[in-house]
Amino acid sequence: MTNTSILEKIFKVLLIFVPLTLVAEFINISPIGIFILSSFAIIPLAKFIGESTEELSAYTGSALGGLLNATFGNATELIISIFALQAGLSEMVKASITGSIIGNLLLILGMAFFFGGLRKEKQKFNATAAKASGSTLLLAIAALVMPAVFVLTSNSPSPATVENLSLAVAVVMALSYLASLLFSLYTHKHLYTEDMAEYHAKWSIKKSVAILLASTISVAFMSEILVGSIESLVESLGWTELFIGVIFVAIIGNAAEHVSAITLAMKGRMDLSLQIAIGSATQIAMFVVPVLVFTSLFLGAPMSLIFNNFELAAIILSVLVVNSITEDGESNWFEGLQLLGTYGVMVVVFFLHP
Amino acid sequence: MTNTSILEKIFKVLLIFVPLTLVAEFINISPIGIFILSSFAIIPLAKFIGESTEELSAYTGSALGGLLNATFGNATELIISIFALQAGLSEMVKASITGSIIGNLLLILGMAFFFGGLRKEKQKFNATAAKASGSTLLLAIAALVMPAVFVLTSNSPSPATVENLSLAVAVVMALSYLASLLFSLYTHKHLYTEDMAEYHAKWSIKKSVAILLASTISVAFMSEILVGSIESLVESLGWTELFIGVIFVAIIGNAAEHVSAITLAMKGRMDLSLQIAIGSATQIAMFVVPVLVFTSLFLGAPMSLIFNNFELAAIILSVLVVNSITEDGESNWFEGLQLLGTYGVMVVVFFLHP
Amino acid sequence: MTNTSILEKIFKVLLIFVPLTLVAEFINISPIGIFILSSFAIIPLAKFIGESTEELSAYTGSALGGLLNATFGNATELIISIFALQAGLSEMVKASITGSIIGNLLLILGMAFFFGGLRKEKQKFNATAAKASGSTLLLAIAALVMPAVFVLTSNSPSPATVENLSLAVAVVMALSYLASLLFSLYTHKHLYTEDMAEYHAKWSIKKSVAILLASTISVAFMSEILVGSIESLVESLGWTELFIGVIFVAIIGNAAEHVSAITLAMKGRMDLSLQIAIGSATQIAMFVVPVLVFTSLFLGAPMSLIFNNFELAAIILSVLVVNSITEDGESNWFEGLQLLGTYGVMVVVFFLHP
Repeated sequence: MTNTSILEKIFKVLLIFVPLTLVAEFINISPIGIFILSSFAIIPLAKFIGESTEELSAYTGSALGGLLNATFGNATELIISIFALQAGLSEMVKASITGSIIGNLLLILGMAFFFGGLRKEKQKFNATAAKASGSTLLLAIAALVMPAVFVLTSNSPSPATVENLSLAVAVVMALSYLASLLFSLYTHKHLYTEDMAEYHAKWSIKKSVAILLASTISVAFMSEILVGSIESLVESLGWTELFIGVIFVAIIGNAAEHVSAITLAMKGRMDLSLQIAIGSATQIAMFVVPVLVFTSLFLGAPMSLIFNNFELAAIILSVLVVNSITEDGESNWFEGLQLLGTYGVMVVVFFLHP
Repeated sequence: MTNTSILEKIFKVLLIFVPLTLVAEFINISPIGIFILSSFAIIPLAKFIGESTEELSAYTGSALGGLLNATFGNATELIISIFALQAGLSEMVKASITGSIIGNLLLILGMAFFFGGLRKEKQKFNATAAKASGSTLLLAIAALVMPAVFVLTSNSPSPATVENLSLAVAVVMALSYLASLLFSLYTHKHLYTEDMAEYHAKWSIKKSVAILLASTISVAFMSEILVGSIESLVESLGWTELFIGVIFVAIIGNAAEHVSAITLAMKGRMDLSLQIAIGSATQIAMFVVPVLVFTSLFLGAPMSLIFNNFELAAIILSVLVVNSITEDGESNWFEGLQLLGTYGVMVVVFFLHP
Repeated sequence: MTNTSILEKIFKVLLIFVPLTLVAEFINISPIGIFILSSFAIIPLAKFIGESTEELSAYTGSALGGLLNATFGNATELIISIFALQAGLSEMVKASITGSIIGNLLLILGMAFFFGGLRKEKQKFNATAAKASGSTLLLAIAALVMPAVFVLTSNSPSPATVENLSLAVAVVMALSYLASLLFSLYTHKHLYTEDMAEYHAKWSIKKSVAILLASTISVAFMSEILVGSIESLVESLGWTELFIGVIFVAIIGNAAEHVSAITLAMKGRMDLSLQIAIGSATQIAMFVVPVLVFTSLFLGAPMSLIFNNFELAAIILSVLVVNSITEDGESNWFEGLQLLGTYGVMVVVFFLHP
């Protein structure tokens, strides 16, 4: 209880970074400064998007509420990515998608298992739900690997072919995602309603809608500023777009989930903690990715679905490790550390990559 | 009951395509016409090979019956492939092997799960049997991947080396297949006899043997005509051997299994349905593949075991997705749709591949 | 009982190869002769290292005993590898690491399942322990694959970068290994103590320490002689370092585990048998590998963590097949044969590789 209210206060205090970022952008300070300030500004805003969505869904009933959650759950990543696409940083967008998936699976889940396991011998969770997400992640891997192998085995296919391929695969992913909503919100909703049932709204509908709108619009402004600072950052620090995307942008976009998943795990609410970490990874793969492919066509700067081998290897290995660790429905601190160790290997390798 | 007898009538009606194909070949109509006619002719013949084998095995006892089933279960694919090898289409043969494996695992099993799950919340099946097949499929993957990696990491190995390699690996696969027969028909046959026990023969031995012979010989004729039309088809439609092999030839060769697996799933007989879909995939990998390697040596046109990366990626991803989805021993419509979605991704990518 | 004492006598008789090797080296016989003699000399010595460690741990209590076992469990592989590194054979060292991992997982476990299953329908073991090792092996795969993909996707990175990368990944692996010791010897030791409890020491502490020292020093001498013979062997037999490392050196280094695992499996003590086979594989991956990377820096001949694709494919496939076969907690002769079949494919492919 106390921990939670302290955390909420911290999030409110962090809101000060929103005006600070605007001032910094206005007086034109160094890109590193702007990158840091806007990053800190996005973290509490992402938290308020999540909170207001949760509040709203307490009024709308589970079906519409689930839809709201599914749509706004990764709003921050989506908004940052759209601004990055507009800035022509499509390689960084793919890097940050990769980073979001491996970050949710290895870093967030790893921290949840580790801190959740420090005071208990083991923590139990629903293995069936974890396996269902595992299958979805394997489908996502198939959708990401096949186009990459396509390009590897063709003699430099034309941009039009790659665009058609990306679009067709994105359509299959989007349809599969819609089917998953039909499954979880309609035909098999009883499997998912247990956790929802306990929740009672703290805010009025009006307040929820107002906060949702305000925080979404603010995230958009902050994201534009953040993305604007990245190009200069690449030059001044010598870091690659790949590394910034995979590690930093991914962590900023998922900071709110990060805090929630660990707090829940420490309270022993492992099922909800897993749902946030693994659920967020599947949503990025099956919802954010196709939406970005479609959006990129409207922006006139098509983002292909061709991830590089490095990103694919990281995603595939993360999914295999997580599926293996979660399939027994139990966790302990060492399993958390194994996930963190795998993440550590990825960070090292992405950092050193030229 | 009614559904089944309607289906049986449809299969009998389809037999009309056998004489139609012969006439079309005689009057020399367009390759596309011949391809379509002979495809439709093979479908009911494959069904009658399956049915007469099943009838015969009711007389022979489970050991010999199992052997008959194992041998004739993929007779159609085998016969088509042998004619294709003779015509020098060894790349198409490998494509159709790939297509048969992913088609059985994703398309047939996906349809079975989807249609079987439309009216029920979930359907249960024996997870142990599914896992055993899953392990066999992983062994098959090892046998297919290692030669490909061999070629990738050698500086263009000599044809003789590739031939020796293919032969040696095929021998290991064949021995492993023989051991699996010893296991399922002799030392551990009690694990497999439950489903068999219920079956009572409808036909006499004579009738069964006659139909088996007649349909096998007819499939041979139709396959020769079908294969003869493919080369012209590649030219006239602009489709690749890869696409025709992976999608069309594979679907034609497995059409009978397709119908059986879905019909059984809709009746709730999931174990038998899985045995047909996954069992057929393992048999193609561990029995048809080595037999084709040996046969190709006699034909003087050795087929190597070097599958391309594209085919391997498709097989590996299919096996991983199916193993993940079947390991809980339950299915529902959404899991079926996930398999179909993965198949959809494969079809799109194979279609666009130059 | 009788089998065991016969085996112990055989091991004692094999000690005769230690002086024989010294004589052979002195009178300078052919490299093949020296290779064979020193190989046979190492086998009983490895057994005595294992036995004296086990004896000692009966005195020290489980925590220190576990540490002793973990450290000396792969002393033989470690010593051979260090001499090979000193001789500049770092590619052969990586080959023998690969061979030790796949040999433990496929050959040793396969023989244990096969011979253990000949007289029984099935043998049961603790699936949870097998899964925990499976997760560790997947983490090891991540640690081995990412550096290889790094090199594949970089334009020939500088030796310094590769060295830093190898060192950083090795540090993560070593920390993860230390955490696993903390887990199994301290925070969760009750999960591992059941098997230990039964054991009563046969030897005095003095005798145990003396035998441990004597056999470790002798293994060092024999390893130096063995490694010295390998280079001439490569020339005279035309076999590759890769093949010698993956198959022969790996089998020699693990011969003692081999005998123990099969003997235990035939007595029905499957848990201990699995612990030796799979546990040895995880220890090589997570302990021997980083120790060799660190040692190689001191020797001034840095060993990179860049395994070739061939070795990686073999390790990945072995881990996937073993995880799939062990996850149900049951084994039978056919599962053993499947593992042996996979090993057979590997041997054939490594033998033919130029």
